[in-house]
Amino acid sequence: MEARAHGEGGRAALAGEALELIAASPRGVLCTLLPEGGEPYGSLVDILTLPDGDAVLFLSGLAEHRKNLDADPRASLLIGPAIGSPDALTQPRATIVGRAERVEDRAEFRDRYMEAHPGAAAYIDFPDFAFYRLRAERVRYIAGFGRMGWIPKDALGAGHG
Amino acid sequence: MEARAHGEGGRAALAGEALELIAASPRGVLCTLLPEGGEPYGSLVDILTLPDGDAVLFLSGLAEHRKNLDADPRASLLIGPAIGSPDALTQPRATIVGRAERVEDRAEFRDRYMEAHPGAAAYIDFPDFAFYRLRAERVRYIAGFGRMGWIPKDALGAGHG
Repeated sequence: MEARAHGEGGRAALAGEALELIAASPRGVLCTLLPEGGEPYGSLVDILTLPDGDAVLFLSGLAEHRKNLDADPRASLLIGPAIGSPDALTQPRATIVGRAERVEDRAEFRDRYMEAHPGAAAYIDFPDFAFYRLRAERVRYIAGFGRMGWIPKDALGAGHG
Repeated sequence: MEARAHGEGGRAALAGEALELIAASPRGVLCTLLPEGGEPYGSLVDILTLPDGDAVLFLSGLAEHRKNLDADPRASLLIGPAIGSPDALTQPRATIVGRAERVEDRAEFRDRYMEAHPGAAAYIDFPDFAFYRLRAERVRYIAGFGRMGWIPKDALGAGHG
């Protein structure tokens, strides 16, 4: 069932597919940790994806997920464009697992983020918003029934030389 | 920004809307905790929703999220049917936060689950699958920009007498 059963070639193929899916996605479900009870908390976010599998988020200081990340950086991001369709469970999705860190220099991603999300122009300069970068430590990729695997960080990097 | 600013009437309205959204949803993003690093992990699941905001999952013994729940029952389930659409951030979504427990008697939800997911007939009697019930402790409901709130358990029950 796992990709490792298919050897290194199978894993490289999965890594390539996962990075392609991630690169094409403007949105995902962020999972963070609620500070009081430690429960994992899912919320919807717009994203800017980077070629190495990292994802950039632009978060309001009032949002629950931002408070959660400031208390504990552990996070994941599920990307599955077909979530709303009836056959979603047979369609590819990827979960980036890692830690999110605040990006101090807003200029680093400002233009690229607005290119991906033109509507963000309305709040891109709000002082209480901030960029966060989810650094991918590994990715769970599910191509469909029976074809899936964990992709380690080095395989993500290798996919984009 | 929070519903509590609108008083009890506002909160009851949010609770009703959240339960309606949850009841109409066949699928969601489950967040569980990875045992090794404790990261929150998002994955796609089919669901059967109950009138009190609880959700029933039917999980393979091989699935990552099932192993996670067996190690730690803390979980959430994001329900957002419009996730795939370009205006998703303006559309309603709800996150059920609670703990998942294994349902020992498969007959309890078997027929209702198959009614909701006819395709499950292919594996509904597989011995390594099991039902889990996510017991809602509270729900985060986001109606759209600027209208949102936490709905406590008692308000969920009250919504359905």
